[in-house]
Amino acid sequence: MVEKRRPIKVREAVNRLMTFSSSGSVENISIEESYGRFLGEDLVADHDIPLFDRSPYDGFAFRSNDTEGTTRNEPCELEVIGEIGAGSVFTSRVGKNQAVRIMTGAQIPDGCDAVVMLEEAKEIDRSGKNMIQVRRPFKSGDNISFKGEDTKQGTVLASKGTYINPGVIALLATFGYKTVPASKKPTIGVIATGSELLEIDEPLQPGKIRNSNAYMICAQIERAGGIPLYLGQFSDDFDTCFQQVEDGMKKVDMLITTGGVSVGDYDYLPDIYQKLGANVLFNKVAMRPGSVTTIAEKDNKLLFGLSGNPSACFVGFELFTRPIIRTYLRCEHPFLNKVSAVLGNDFPKPNPFDRFVRGQLTIEEGRLIATPAGLDKSNVVSSLAGNSLIVLPGGTKGYQKGSNVKVILLEDQAGTSFENFTI
Amino acid sequence: MVEKRRPIKVREAVNRLMTFSSSGSVENISIEESYGRFLGEDLVADHDIPLFDRSPYDGFAFRSNDTEGTTRNEPCELEVIGEIGAGSVFTSRVGKNQAVRIMTGAQIPDGCDAVVMLEEAKEIDRSGKNMIQVRRPFKSGDNISFKGEDTKQGTVLASKGTYINPGVIALLATFGYKTVPASKKPTIGVIATGSELLEIDEPLQPGKIRNSNAYMICAQIERAGGIPLYLGQFSDDFDTCFQQVEDGMKKVDMLITTGGVSVGDYDYLPDIYQKLGANVLFNKVAMRPGSVTTIAEKDNKLLFGLSGNPSACFVGFELFTRPIIRTYLRCEHPFLNKVSAVLGNDFPKPNPFDRFVRGQLTIEEGRLIATPAGLDKSNVVSSLAGNSLIVLPGGTKGYQKGSNVKVILLEDQAGTSFENFTI
Repeated sequence: MVEKRRPIKVREAVNRLMTFSSSGSVENISIEESYGRFLGEDLVADHDIPLFDRSPYDGFAFRSNDTEGTTRNEPCELEVIGEIGAGSVFTSRVGKNQAVRIMTGAQIPDGCDAVVMLEEAKEIDRSGKNMIQVRRPFKSGDNISFKGEDTKQGTVLASKGTYINPGVIALLATFGYKTVPASKKPTIGVIATGSELLEIDEPLQPGKIRNSNAYMICAQIERAGGIPLYLGQFSDDFDTCFQQVEDGMKKVDMLITTGGVSVGDYDYLPDIYQKLGANVLFNKVAMRPGSVTTIAEKDNKLLFGLSGNPSACFVGFELFTRPIIRTYLRCEHPFLNKVSAVLGNDFPKPNPFDRFVRGQLTIEEGRLIATPAGLDKSNVVSSLAGNSLIVLPGGTKGYQKGSNVKVILLEDQAGTSFENFTI
Repeated sequence: MVEKRRPIKVREAVNRLMTFSSSGSVENISIEESYGRFLGEDLVADHDIPLFDRSPYDGFAFRSNDTEGTTRNEPCELEVIGEIGAGSVFTSRVGKNQAVRIMTGAQIPDGCDAVVMLEEAKEIDRSGKNMIQVRRPFKSGDNISFKGEDTKQGTVLASKGTYINPGVIALLATFGYKTVPASKKPTIGVIATGSELLEIDEPLQPGKIRNSNAYMICAQIERAGGIPLYLGQFSDDFDTCFQQVEDGMKKVDMLITTGGVSVGDYDYLPDIYQKLGANVLFNKVAMRPGSVTTIAEKDNKLLFGLSGNPSACFVGFELFTRPIIRTYLRCEHPFLNKVSAVLGNDFPKPNPFDRFVRGQLTIEEGRLIATPAGLDKSNVVSSLAGNSLIVLPGGTKGYQKGSNVKVILLEDQAGTSFENFTI
């Protein structure tokens, strides 16, 4: 008998799933290892930036009053009484008609309130005294970077869950984070099912295909921020499969299986969930591809039963597994971001269900163009390498080139909230 | 005396630089390690996909002729003479009014030319014979994925230099790449200069700042695809500095210094280039920030003398060092991609030179909005974490909100060619 399953909408499926999401812990890592990780806590400024009034240029610091009424033809002359390298501090007070040579980044000496750039000042000698000519009036504060003008102490500069890019690393270094509180990565087990699967290095055989899903999913886990643990392929025997799942669950924070969730005679997963006593959140989603995606929960660990065909497997991961991983990584926006774009080709296929089509988003003269990668048959592997999923709501006979569509960005790190997720 | 330098345009600077670009070698790595690397050679299909005519669904395979004239009220009945699991092959020939139960992905048996989905076929028993009812006519080829319809053997599926994302990994696995020919990563040395620099864990002192550039640049190197090797800070002594550069050059494929390239009294780099006998390609670029960016070449190794202030250092790396790294990684599009967008805020600063402003590119209802991160003073650290550089051509008194601008995408992996690069 064919089991009857009631399909639910993607949004409802994600909603059920997110009830079981949880944040992981925080671990301290060195700043050198932190690129590509996620902040476990807010990044806070431990001091003002700049910490002191400083010069943004190489030049001369002086009192702006001394340049009042100065013109190109009637320059004022200031005596250079010393110099300050970056990192040094000038200890005397600078007086009337005096100046100090100052390097980029150095602290403005007491008494000074302006800086003239090196290129703008003419150095001259007056009876052995080192002087500069200034040819225009300066206002107080000219060419000075003031204490705290960039960042005030205590400011939250990046919130927990932020992806650590090179700019965030500059902030971490500036504010003294030699060790970085990073979100611990979840370990995610992967089991491939399907007696038709050959390992990558096995010779091709009639009726069989190479196991690409496991490697693809492991890379998707890495992209999402987790640690993949490939646990191998299912055996053909039910009891052994059950043991593989039960043992695998002990080693990981969540478990992904690929294949075995259909209603076919060799699809063991439904029976495994039952024998485990797992709570099946849903086993049919009103979407293409990936309608048989099944997600279950056992002792607060999630089991993702993704479809066995590459495209459905890919989509199921990005829609369902990724937000769970990003929540574990303490991200406030765990969902993939979505933008509006224009369809770059016809998509003539009747569309009874919400469809997620792999495609390439390009930007042409400020317009976003989303081009579907072929007809998106579930078994089409070669269109997987695109940067986006085009969302085509169900209930139509297809879509014309030029239609407005929503597009999910696969490589975006900023993410979004549930409100803006899917359709 | 202040040295006179002749500024050149960014495009001319990059043009001179690219003369010294070169491709690195190829190394074989395991597919498990390949995520985030770059293809060293074209990825070629070693067989047709599908390799054989196969069923995209669970169902029954049969001869379409047998369903001619069939209607809902007058279904035809076919005898189920066997079943094929995925990965198995049906060895007999299927004859008139016969059918075979077939699993998703299994090979279509000899004689069959159509598949009816499980849900569409009604199984019945006729005197102990297992039969199905089919309620509509099928055409030859219905519900069959044909040999080679996705990909023909010999097709180049991704060209050398392609960033290896999860979709590319699926292709590598499908086509038997257990080991992947990957572009070797260049090793890039980093030396920080500046007596004002404190290490991250040193207490703050008057006049000093923490060394953020070195860590930022190391992360930028990782993002671009290289291996950073932090060689420490310059000493205060010229001869020791020279020795540091000379020794560093032997360990790396290219060398980055931050700071020390201005015309200040503590800027040792120009003299170091001279003593090295290096060929200085340029030492002044008509851009802000980073006008003092200096690039030299010695024995076909490039020395990038980036400015010491964080923003100029950041921009200098992305404009000049990144395309050299990506060329080393065998990318055909080594330059950062650029798109048109609308300015999200006024930028009221007079703009005598081409300016690169760090900012955040967002997409709102299909429109690209580029928002500058503050006034982009060279010392502003907290605006570094954005995803783009806004290009503001020189020769204006500023830009108004709503102006059309070009924006360089920092996180884009696809890249572009020199023709589409900058301004």
